[in-house]
Amino acid sequence: MARSTSLSGFAEWLPAERLVELHMLDTLREVFERHGFSSLESRAVETLETLLQKGEVDKEIYAVSRLQEELAEDAAPKKDGRLALRFDNTVPFARYVVENAGHLNFPFRRHQIQKVWRGERPQDGRYREFTQADIDVVGDGELPFRADVEIAVVIAQALDSMPIGEFHLRINNRKLAQGFYTALGLEDTTAVLRGIDKLEKIGPERVAEDLKTTAGATDEQARKALALAQIRTEDTSFVDQVRALTEGLTGDTALLEEGLAELEELIAEVGKRVPGRAVADLSIARGLDYYTGTVYETVLVGHENLGSICSGGRYESLASKGRRTFPGVGISIGVTRLVARVLSSEMATATRSVPAAVYVALRTEEDWGAAQDVADQLRSRGINAEVALKAEKFGRQIRHADRRGIPFVWFTDEEGNHEVKDIRSGEQTAADPATWTPADDDMLPRIVESV
Amino acid sequence: MARSTSLSGFAEWLPAERLVELHMLDTLREVFERHGFSSLESRAVETLETLLQKGEVDKEIYAVSRLQEELAEDAAPKKDGRLALRFDNTVPFARYVVENAGHLNFPFRRHQIQKVWRGERPQDGRYREFTQADIDVVGDGELPFRADVEIAVVIAQALDSMPIGEFHLRINNRKLAQGFYTALGLEDTTAVLRGIDKLEKIGPERVAEDLKTTAGATDEQARKALALAQIRTEDTSFVDQVRALTEGLTGDTALLEEGLAELEELIAEVGKRVPGRAVADLSIARGLDYYTGTVYETVLVGHENLGSICSGGRYESLASKGRRTFPGVGISIGVTRLVARVLSSEMATATRSVPAAVYVALRTEEDWGAAQDVADQLRSRGINAEVALKAEKFGRQIRHADRRGIPFVWFTDEEGNHEVKDIRSGEQTAADPATWTPADDDMLPRIVESV
Repeated sequence: MARSTSLSGFAEWLPAERLVELHMLDTLREVFERHGFSSLESRAVETLETLLQKGEVDKEIYAVSRLQEELAEDAAPKKDGRLALRFDNTVPFARYVVENAGHLNFPFRRHQIQKVWRGERPQDGRYREFTQADIDVVGDGELPFRADVEIAVVIAQALDSMPIGEFHLRINNRKLAQGFYTALGLEDTTAVLRGIDKLEKIGPERVAEDLKTTAGATDEQARKALALAQIRTEDTSFVDQVRALTEGLTGDTALLEEGLAELEELIAEVGKRVPGRAVADLSIARGLDYYTGTVYETVLVGHENLGSICSGGRYESLASKGRRTFPGVGISIGVTRLVARVLSSEMATATRSVPAAVYVALRTEEDWGAAQDVADQLRSRGINAEVALKAEKFGRQIRHADRRGIPFVWFTDEEGNHEVKDIRSGEQTAADPATWTPADDDMLPRIVESV
Repeated sequence: MARSTSLSGFAEWLPAERLVELHMLDTLREVFERHGFSSLESRAVETLETLLQKGEVDKEIYAVSRLQEELAEDAAPKKDGRLALRFDNTVPFARYVVENAGHLNFPFRRHQIQKVWRGERPQDGRYREFTQADIDVVGDGELPFRADVEIAVVIAQALDSMPIGEFHLRINNRKLAQGFYTALGLEDTTAVLRGIDKLEKIGPERVAEDLKTTAGATDEQARKALALAQIRTEDTSFVDQVRALTEGLTGDTALLEEGLAELEELIAEVGKRVPGRAVADLSIARGLDYYTGTVYETVLVGHENLGSICSGGRYESLASKGRRTFPGVGISIGVTRLVARVLSSEMATATRSVPAAVYVALRTEEDWGAAQDVADQLRSRGINAEVALKAEKFGRQIRHADRRGIPFVWFTDEEGNHEVKDIRSGEQTAADPATWTPADDDMLPRIVESV
């Protein structure tokens, strides 16, 4: 765990750590597919043009070039048509949807669990290569709001299935926030959102100053915008709190009402299906991202310093192709950061470092074939088994299994009698390779939560 | 299938195609773990130095650089400490073993199923990004020969579990070949190997010329070297054929005998455990790769134009750390090339394009919560279920399920009575969400082989 890696920002796990990661990845896939999300993968590279087309990109991009071409062409990398590594799964997915629209059925649900790369300064918990697990629902022309609810429910269930303890899915709605600012009489709602987004970093007083200078807010408007951002409820009582703030306002409240109704439905439904996980948090802004309605963030209770472990939201237009637009809603789990914390905090560990449940010992060098026969009988019944490569002393062979956490060692004597030893208890009993089966708990390496 | 991708050399699958790939990847993982191989992943990037340290590298490398750094530093990419994408899983694994030797237990079995990148000209069946599935066994200081046998058996079983039809694992041993050349009196055995490696490309006559000019062979030596390369048997009868060629030779035959004994054991054991798959093929040389004993190649019968779909061999020193050496033996399946052929030849298809077995229809917009309750009851029993996002006409909702191949549509009437329709037969029956279960074959999308 305290190992340092040879390239900072790039995590590599030891076998037992990898088992924890695999368990988390397998669990995510299972929950996503349980809800009808199809698995997809996109290529690692995009054209630089695709990656930059959303305009301002605050992610550090890794460019990619063929070394031999570079050497041949005097080391001057071309600017056009260049390739670069994806920095998230959303931009590639949007491109994929446009390219394959004719082959997909909408609304289209997909999960995508892949590595992404960002050339940022590696800090505690920041990786240059990390796995993101995304789910999105994308429509053709339209996508009912309840897709936003579905995404929240699925991700809350997925996170609930992981060995990470308590978390809070903090949800807001940009229509609510922007509708509120409009109702307040503030026209540059983007400037207000950006100001509010800094709340956690710079505090309410400096945000108020910021709102006055960049968004032209009065004291009263700034005060109310800040008051809105301070609303945080685990049920739908935020609705009354917002109404109290808007009493007597004369501006247009249509957008505000739409956002309020959406967030109310979302919080009620998630609260009902995955109790105690959803929080209406009206401070959530999601910075520069181009969300148009629901926005999600997630904090791990007791590990708030990790930042949001899972974020996303609704795009009115995730992608477009001529006049055709594809609205979408999605969310993304930062898996590597989560795995790293689970490992460093020892929130979960693997019961052993290898898949084998049984280590078949060798009595003599000539016995390897017979030992493989035993192992094959076990394997044919779904029991993972490894055969010793050398007929060392039994003590050494047992130690070999013990070091890996393999629970059982199999012995066959000269007459072909079989015995299996549970090396934890030391108990050794006669066994038949055609029928003997370990306890369910010993079949596969398990991930044990220490919470 | 005939879709063209937007970036040549980079495959991206549609959901139903991805299911075929996933099935193949899941099967590989299962077989590998059944035999005790641990899952590992390495980072996508290596230093250029690591990638080039084996000397001559015939793979086109993709270099990686931080775009912002590049722009800041006047577009001159640095030569030192540069990063590049891995082109196989072996070089990164060797580096990983050296870095983590203190944390690993040897002999160490691992599987690694990851994307690799090569900037080669994309041709038919050649990809710039593709998945390789590797297994290796690596020892500390020593590694018994039977690890070579184990690798062949495991990979033959793995390939046997895939929907790819017949294949031949063609196996040779460099000790046998080099020992034979030495016994013949040819000293530059590497030059002979390189000549023989061209056999399939340029034919025996030009190889004979090549051997005479580059390896100083006489007519008789060239003839015998070529005769050795023409030996190909599905059993151990190659041993007698080699002995017939070596009769009367006076050179040192120690290495030849060692190689003969190894290959004989290997062919016998694989033939016994996975009948009809192993072929002793004394023409296999594996070109520039640094193998020191067993070498493996695999051809798909009827798809020989794919080239080798699975190759590898034994390294006396996969890696080293000071005086400590780590011998290894391993093999790698080119998964993407194989998946592409399975798809284009329709060797296997998915029974549906989405994970859901049940599509829960909406009678009215207000029913969404109740429909999710039904779906949750199904999901809690392991049945993948999707809920309609809109209360469209039932005909449209059924069509929605039909297009995705979802076999069942669930209806709940005003009184809360449930019915489920098998949309293939049209049969509709009363059903209880707490107990109804689809047939086993309909639970998950299945991969159906058309062979």
